[in-house]
Amino acid sequence: MSRVAIVGSGAVGCYYGARLAEAGHEVHFLMRRDYAVVAARGLRILSKDGDLHLERPHVARDSAAIGPVDWVICALKATGIEDARALVAPCVGASTRILVLMNGLGLEDRFAEWFGAERVFGGLAFTCINRGEPGTVHHIDYGPVTIGHLQDDPAEVHAGLALWAGAKVETVRAPSLLAGRWTKLCWNVPFNGLAVTAGGITTDRILADPALREAVTTLILEVAAAGNADLAAHGQTVRLDGPAIARNMVAATDAMAAYRPSTMIDFVEGLPMEVAAIFEEPLRRASALGVATPLLALVTGQMRALNARGR
Amino acid sequence: MSRVAIVGSGAVGCYYGARLAEAGHEVHFLMRRDYAVVAARGLRILSKDGDLHLERPHVARDSAAIGPVDWVICALKATGIEDARALVAPCVGASTRILVLMNGLGLEDRFAEWFGAERVFGGLAFTCINRGEPGTVHHIDYGPVTIGHLQDDPAEVHAGLALWAGAKVETVRAPSLLAGRWTKLCWNVPFNGLAVTAGGITTDRILADPALREAVTTLILEVAAAGNADLAAHGQTVRLDGPAIARNMVAATDAMAAYRPSTMIDFVEGLPMEVAAIFEEPLRRASALGVATPLLALVTGQMRALNARGR
Repeated sequence: MSRVAIVGSGAVGCYYGARLAEAGHEVHFLMRRDYAVVAARGLRILSKDGDLHLERPHVARDSAAIGPVDWVICALKATGIEDARALVAPCVGASTRILVLMNGLGLEDRFAEWFGAERVFGGLAFTCINRGEPGTVHHIDYGPVTIGHLQDDPAEVHAGLALWAGAKVETVRAPSLLAGRWTKLCWNVPFNGLAVTAGGITTDRILADPALREAVTTLILEVAAAGNADLAAHGQTVRLDGPAIARNMVAATDAMAAYRPSTMIDFVEGLPMEVAAIFEEPLRRASALGVATPLLALVTGQMRALNARGR
Repeated sequence: MSRVAIVGSGAVGCYYGARLAEAGHEVHFLMRRDYAVVAARGLRILSKDGDLHLERPHVARDSAAIGPVDWVICALKATGIEDARALVAPCVGASTRILVLMNGLGLEDRFAEWFGAERVFGGLAFTCINRGEPGTVHHIDYGPVTIGHLQDDPAEVHAGLALWAGAKVETVRAPSLLAGRWTKLCWNVPFNGLAVTAGGITTDRILADPALREAVTTLILEVAAAGNADLAAHGQTVRLDGPAIARNMVAATDAMAAYRPSTMIDFVEGLPMEVAAIFEEPLRRASALGVATPLLALVTGQMRALNARGR
């Protein structure tokens, strides 16, 4: 059993931390907003894979109170990346591994600068998890987590998957973390982007509008093309099959319940959105590599302007 | 001197009606919202081409009170097109001409169905005019009005220009009304569309964002390509020079003061936006003609979703 620190105990961090605790790991949740509620009443998961109530989870207001662990799972919002180093550092010992369970491109590179690339993993949660009332998380649909290692070291990827072996979480191996990140962007760019720029709508309404449905596919093809150029630039041989990804992701999202992507919730609630990691960094790489991504550019500009409202 | 009815006395209708009255024409304003204020205090124009105060303009609450005129200038919002027939009909006699001074594609065709194509003109106001307090209109920048005839009859275009000969309004002849409409869309699609979908921003902020600035040009090229296919389908030989239009419109808009396009004002005020005439009809024609317009499709879908909010 491992000692695990969840840094960033939002909906995603709480959900996966709870599943690890359920499997017997010693899981410590770093909490700010919900500390008092969870300390008093525990953490409640309402999930299609079975509900769960952790009556007395380990909660901490401060990473130093947790100290070094086997695994840090960093599930901060990407907008908080500049705070991540200070929040994670007290939990990092000589043999600590760090799983970056966040949205967007380039975040693992920051952790590698701070803590060394050999201990950095990326987790890609293709899942629908939303916060409920404080201390409650709704796991709505889907659920596999793709796990990769920043250096794509097979033994390390194996260790990354092993953590989840006894937990009620389906995991998938990412032979290339970079390819996994770009694949995840193939969903986040169109669905997070259009859910916001069409005024705060759910995924089903995006796909019900013929023009937005067409834009989803076009955006996926652009992101896949940019991803393939980036993979080539990194000397990797794996490539994304854009048309197949578009077909599969549209079909999968059609089959999902109406979903509010996290960025759309941030938008509706007036919170900072993950524009840099999900939109600007992919666009920056596409432009640097000479890949034409006109729809990505448009949505990035819209997201940037919307993110600046009232700030 | 002509008898003129302004149907739809918003900012644009009031401005041009006032300029015709100033030139000595007998101008009747059909008014709803501002009737009482204008009847009591007159109509005030604040303009870079000279301020103007019509102390006792002819105002009417009902088109029947105006009766047949030489010229109807219909300056309704395009969202009110279904009401236009009933509002205009009482002003149409045997020799009445109708100038459709509205945004968007296909509106003149509706007037042609109702009243006969030979009397229908289109006016394209490349101008910045906003409502101020009731009874006051701000004419901010630019000003030429392009005048065309639905059948492109040169004698009729001449008559259309003659109306404005003594007025403080610069006019431009449109040899092809259809080409004029598509040219106007080259501005309205990107600037009205992005001003709304980027959250309600002014034209200067669109052009200050590198990604949105790029999207402006891409949208203009798409609209021009669709326009050229539409012109060909209508047997016309004139074509739009998309790259030149893009350069000129971006430069002209850079030179303008920060401007709130009418659709953006509607958006911010929660009013219905001119989505059908400015976005959906151009996209419908592009699709029918097999012209790829992916950015136009995206913005149209976004505008449609935003227009449906709360309705």
